[in-house]
This record gives sequence, structure tokens and C-alpha cells, in this order.
Amino acid sequence: MRIALGLEYDGSAFCGWQTQPRGCAVQDYLESALAIIAGRETATICAGRTDAGVHALAQVVHFDTDAARPLTAWVRGVNSHLPKTIAVIWAVEVGADFHARNSARERCYRYVLLNHPARPALYDKRMGWAHQPLDLEAMQGSAQCLIGEHDFSAFRARECQAASPMKTLRKAEIIRHGNIFVFEFVAPSFLYHMVRNLVGSLVSVGAHREPPGWLQQVLESRDRTLAAPTFAPDGLYLADVAYDAKWGLPRIPRL
Amino acid sequence: MRIALGLEYDGSAFCGWQTQPRGCAVQDYLESALAIIAGRETATICAGRTDAGVHALAQVVHFDTDAARPLTAWVRGVNSHLPKTIAVIWAVEVGADFHARNSARERCYRYVLLNHPARPALYDKRMGWAHQPLDLEAMQGSAQCLIGEHDFSAFRARECQAASPMKTLRKAEIIRHGNIFVFEFVAPSFLYHMVRNLVGSLVSVGAHREPPGWLQQVLESRDRTLAAPTFAPDGLYLADVAYDAKWGLPRIPRL
Repeated sequence: MRIALGLEYDGSAFCGWQTQPRGCAVQDYLESALAIIAGRETATICAGRTDAGVHALAQVVHFDTDAARPLTAWVRGVNSHLPKTIAVIWAVEVGADFHARNSARERCYRYVLLNHPARPALYDKRMGWAHQPLDLEAMQGSAQCLIGEHDFSAFRARECQAASPMKTLRKAEIIRHGNIFVFEFVAPSFLYHMVRNLVGSLVSVGAHREPPGWLQQVLESRDRTLAAPTFAPDGLYLADVAYDAKWGLPRIPRL
Repeated sequence: MRIALGLEYDGSAFCGWQTQPRGCAVQDYLESALAIIAGRETATICAGRTDAGVHALAQVVHFDTDAARPLTAWVRGVNSHLPKTIAVIWAVEVGADFHARNSARERCYRYVLLNHPARPALYDKRMGWAHQPLDLEAMQGSAQCLIGEHDFSAFRARECQAASPMKTLRKAEIIRHGNIFVFEFVAPSFLYHMVRNLVGSLVSVGAHREPPGWLQQVLESRDRTLAAPTFAPDGLYLADVAYDAKWGLPRIPRL
């Protein structure tokens, strides 16, 4: 049978989602814990392969097993064998045609940034930081040009393995809560480092290092060297993955 | 001259505020960093001596120095010598009659609790946890009896050194955001472990392990053995310290 899991993690202590020979990845810890509960090796596939230092509020994972266990064993049992900063938050049985990556219709990433002269402490490694005052409206105005289908080569890491640089952004929203800016991006899929590259360039606009209209020029240039540097992973969260309702996955935000 | 500092910290890696021979306290790290900037030993006094594992959004500290430094040196300079999970967020010069502890009129503590079957991961060590569903209205109803001046002996740790068990609670509020409950307590001062003991007993009411009216009986009994066990430090934050406006301390919440 195929089981889908919802997963929350603080990525700061891990070398990303994807399994590594050193065993330092979220996938390594999850598969070790699943192996204990299942009594055999258990391979997993996830919705979004987060980078080192990137967090997840709602990563979705699936695996196949012939070990018959109550669903609570895949939550509480697995959690008892995971590091404290990784937790399974739900488990459901799904059909064999469900696929955590291929069935996902949209991913939502959030970047949380502290805008204050002093660096984050309570949210060390879990918030980005910009010490110079940011202009919310300038960033919101610039972000509009990102909506829709574009060639995002200017915001694509060299190591990106996607077949095409064309991506369709449905949402590029920036909201402010006091000193905290939350950038939210929704798309069926993203290029490698795309969100962190977009945030870096939006912050350049917000700090008035670049004029209005600059972001659109960079987008149209398709030239990575014109955009701002990649922003730190610290503030990046895989916040939601959307699937067709037919799969019956929980969509209740936990945090 | 006397300088007041606002301090934010994630208490999970420290053995509390107060200086320890092992040097593991927030005060030890702060005084070491101040000594580097001041060029001499610098003793500090804080508004609220937080326990091991307890966090601060806005701890207030003062110290005396004859080292003339721009105020930014007491923020950015000190921060460059502090662990990543401690940060000075503001510094102001105050009169010699200001005292971080004695001048404080009120303290506000917040306890943040995740109410979900699976333990916190992203907020490991920074949120308390109750896995059984909690009844918000039962807790809110019970909390009313705590408001005002009472003998809080039933919620006082044995090690408490306060001269009297009488304390005056101005606020005991519980609000809910989805799966997260935030308990907020405001008083001129608190007994040792009082907030964590109150949260433990309120959670017993919220989980229906105790009936309505039980909290008032416990309060009136003045008997610590009747109340619930002390709740974990993980979710406790020193959220605010109120001073007379004449001192001119910043009151802008940073987070």
C-alpha cells in the first residue's frame, strides 16, 4: 500500500531534503525512522526537495510498504525515532497512482525576513535579515511583473536541472507585520534557487538600491548576472503543497 | 553613565539569565561581549531573571560604564561578540536613578503552546505542547479567578525567594490561533515558576482532567501539591517590561 505523510521540519541542522552519503539529510532521518516502524528499508519521494537550511511547514512525502500498521504508527511511532526538529504531522493511505511530486498541482513557498537594524536572535537560522529599511510598496509594485508565465532564467541557479526556464507564477505577494516581511510565491513548480533569487532582487528594490522597473528589466534580460545575489536559506519555508481534492490529503495548516 | 539595553534571546541553549560558574548563562555571554566593547569588566542587572530554556522578546538590562561609546557600539558592536541566539535590539542612555529591575512597573510573560497530536518540530524548544484537544472557553473561564491580588502559594515553586506569596495579576488572557494557544500574564512581578505552574493547571482544565471551579479551589487552598505539575520552559517568553514613559525606553515590539 501507498502512504502519504505531512512533514514539518526546521531545516537548519540538516543538509537539505535529499539523501546524502553522510546521512545528514531530512530524507535520511525519515527513512531510518520509517525502517524501524516498517521493519524493512523504506524509500520515500517528496513534493519539494528543499535545500540545506530551508524549512518545511507542510512537506508531503509518499512511500510504499507491505507493513500493515495503524496510521498512528506512521505518525507517533515514526516521530519517536526522528530528531526533535523533524515531525510527521499526519499520515493517510492513498491510491497507488498518487505521487507526492508528480501529483502536486502547486507549491507555496514563503520567505520570512526581519527588517531591523539588529540581526534576528530568537529566529536565528529561521528568518532572513535586512538591516536597511525596506519600502513595501516598491517591492509590491515590482513583484507584479513576475505574475504569469515567464522565462525565469535571470533567477535560475547555474546548477538547475529543469528542462525549461519557463515557469508560471500565480502569486507573488509581500505582506508586512511590523518589522517582519513575508514574501509568498505560488507556482506549479520553481527553478532551483528561484525563490531566494527573487527575494534577493526584491530586497534590492525595497532598499532603493535599484529603481522601479529594474526587476522587469532583469526578468526580460534572462541574464542571471544582472539579478541580485541569492538570499540566505534561513527565512525560506515550503509552506504548502496543493493536490486534487480526490486524494483526500489533510489541508489544515498546523502552524 | 548608565546604559539600558533591550535584549532578545532564544533561551534553549543557555542555563537561564543569571550568571553561572560554568559561564553558560545569557548574563555571562552579555557581560563578556560588553567587556570587549567597554574595554573593562561590566556588570549588568536585568528586569526579569529568566530560567533555563525560557526566551525573551524584550528583556531589559542596565549597566554603568565610563567607556564613552556611540550607542550603535552597544548594539552592533556587542552583537558581533554575542552568540547568534542572543541580540541587543536597542540601547539608550538613562539617568543614574534608572534600575532595570526596580524601575519596572509590570512584566508581561507569554506562554505559547502547540495543541496538536504531533509534537512541535519547527518550534522545538520554543513552544510547549499538549496533544489532547484543549477547551479554550473552559481555560478562559477558569483564568478569571486569577485576576487581582491573591496569595499565589499554590503556584509557587519551593525554591522561590520572594518575601511574600501575594501578587497582583492584571491580565490572564488566553487566545487561540488555529492549533496554537497563547497565554498572556501581566503583573508587577511574579513568584518563581508561577507562570509555568499556572499554565500547567490551566491545561488540566482545558483537557477536562479537572472540572470548572477547580482552579479557584486550588488558588484558595494555597497548597502547591494540589495544583498541576510545572509546565515545560519551552514555550515561555518574557514578552515585555513596562517602565514609566519618563525613562524614554523604546516600546516598539520588534517581533
